[in-house]
Amino acid sequence: MDAKKRTEIATLGEFGLIDLLTQDFPTRNASTLRGVGDDAAVIAPPAGEAVLCTTDTFFEGVDFDLTYFPLKHLGYKVVTAAISDLLAMNARPAQLTVSLGVSAKLPVEALQDLYEGIRFACKEHEIDLVGGDTRASMNGLTIGVTALGHAPKEQIVYRSGARQNDLVCLTGNLGAAYMGLRLLEREKRVLTDVKNPEPQFKGYEYLLEKYLKPRPRTDIIEALREEQIHPTAMIDLSDGLASDLLQLCKASECGVRIYLDRIPIAQQTSALADEMHMDPVVAALNGGEDYELLFTVPLEMQEQVMRLGLVDVIGHITPASTGAFLVTPDGQDIRLRAQGFPEK
Amino acid sequence: MDAKKRTEIATLGEFGLIDLLTQDFPTRNASTLRGVGDDAAVIAPPAGEAVLCTTDTFFEGVDFDLTYFPLKHLGYKVVTAAISDLLAMNARPAQLTVSLGVSAKLPVEALQDLYEGIRFACKEHEIDLVGGDTRASMNGLTIGVTALGHAPKEQIVYRSGARQNDLVCLTGNLGAAYMGLRLLEREKRVLTDVKNPEPQFKGYEYLLEKYLKPRPRTDIIEALREEQIHPTAMIDLSDGLASDLLQLCKASECGVRIYLDRIPIAQQTSALADEMHMDPVVAALNGGEDYELLFTVPLEMQEQVMRLGLVDVIGHITPASTGAFLVTPDGQDIRLRAQGFPEK
Repeated sequence: MDAKKRTEIATLGEFGLIDLLTQDFPTRNASTLRGVGDDAAVIAPPAGEAVLCTTDTFFEGVDFDLTYFPLKHLGYKVVTAAISDLLAMNARPAQLTVSLGVSAKLPVEALQDLYEGIRFACKEHEIDLVGGDTRASMNGLTIGVTALGHAPKEQIVYRSGARQNDLVCLTGNLGAAYMGLRLLEREKRVLTDVKNPEPQFKGYEYLLEKYLKPRPRTDIIEALREEQIHPTAMIDLSDGLASDLLQLCKASECGVRIYLDRIPIAQQTSALADEMHMDPVVAALNGGEDYELLFTVPLEMQEQVMRLGLVDVIGHITPASTGAFLVTPDGQDIRLRAQGFPEK
Repeated sequence: MDAKKRTEIATLGEFGLIDLLTQDFPTRNASTLRGVGDDAAVIAPPAGEAVLCTTDTFFEGVDFDLTYFPLKHLGYKVVTAAISDLLAMNARPAQLTVSLGVSAKLPVEALQDLYEGIRFACKEHEIDLVGGDTRASMNGLTIGVTALGHAPKEQIVYRSGARQNDLVCLTGNLGAAYMGLRLLEREKRVLTDVKNPEPQFKGYEYLLEKYLKPRPRTDIIEALREEQIHPTAMIDLSDGLASDLLQLCKASECGVRIYLDRIPIAQQTSALADEMHMDPVVAALNGGEDYELLFTVPLEMQEQVMRLGLVDVIGHITPASTGAFLVTPDGQDIRLRAQGFPEK
């Protein structure tokens, strides 16, 4: 945010503000018949394709802390979070609406920063901003994002398709976003009341990037398509591996066994966890906000999946009756729970 | 809200709460391929139809006051507000997502009341609840609603199609919702610190109904279709006649003349305005939240429109260069402004 200039929102009015924020959002998708500026957006999917819709809300003080979250990054991140849900259905994101609740304490320039991040994400992923509004809110910033996309019906992947013996595949690595958040919280605590604070982030830049500016795994969806790999089930990792995997198992009516030593954890994640006397596996299992993709494929596709070079196989699907377990290197079975990792 | 029972949200957890709230929402539309329970909803519009999407957010303390707004009515009202935007495009609403930000002070029973109102509206208008989430919020209740619908492309009506000499048509009457709000605010003020308060609403029940439980004008869209009347432009009245009419004129690049003595105002609206020493026309022009429809039709359709028995013709479209005016019975021209009615 440019500290030099401060324009009060009241000087523009609601419509003036929306006009200002939504300029420079060119329409990139043929499916967008009407975007911003009418009662509703109009979307015409290609013949035979279905429209997918997902919605997320982000609350200041719960989902983000503006003392250390740059608004430009926040704009980028809320788009990632929203479109990640569409990628998890194997669909291409195409449209976005953004609804803001704004307290008077934020100047227009802050909202412009937020929209710069949104604009950057829209450009990067060829998404059209098609609607939304900006309202007064009594308390803090609220960001509502609705993402729309489309896909041929037979190509859509649900959570419910996992079958016995399917391989459980995972993109990227886990726990980095959560450790990035822990680092930011630590520096905020340490530097409260310090004049000209200089937070210590050296060596942990990757963790900050994963928390503040996570990238949606559009590349995975494209790679799967190119390799003609059709996952049997898929979910995005927003609540943590344990919780999201249990959701997939519940929808697919199956059990699962994943192997602790196969869960990919980045070096910086382990290093900071060590420094904080934490188990990095806890961050991976329960951290959330990784926005990686978890999917299942039939056993016989193992080689094909490995050839992608983007995925780790961390376990396999079992019958529902056998439950959901994490297997430790010494052969112990630990039951997966949505929250809280059993202390050893 | 049943005062006898109070279940804390924390006892259910996020997923348990969502499961509880979203039960008893049967799927009614063939276009709903997948509703609640996956990363995104999947909607398959009939061949040749476009999907319409609109989003609204409602903030406690700004958009509603829980001291006098029954949660059941609030649930109904947010659905009305959302689908009214689709009706204004001449489309049929079909799907809905609801995202809640909830402070811990609200018990589960309160949210069940809210969802009962949403359920009632969904049943009445044959809408499927297809998604949403419930999150913690630091401050008050926030309700985000996304409504989806579909319509043949050639049937969709935009704000931008009004042409010179078109008639300006209006459903229902204006200002009642605003006067209902004023009445509730007055009784709240008067009865602060009164034990066992007994608010005085007698004779103004219609105003309360219009503010607390406005009905979406689905009937108008159906009547227009039956009579084969295709409006040239349409908008719903959520911000007040002046503001919404100016939006339509801006989008259609035209001017307008409306006649003060043709603006329909209910008897109760006038009576309460008199009692409060207000001009009822101010309520009609700037009040908002009426959720009536404003549309334009070619001049030659006057008789056909009047036959509907549901609509008043309040003026006509003029060239952009002549501006937007309210004409008083004594022939004075008053320029329309988005907010604020010039005092006589």
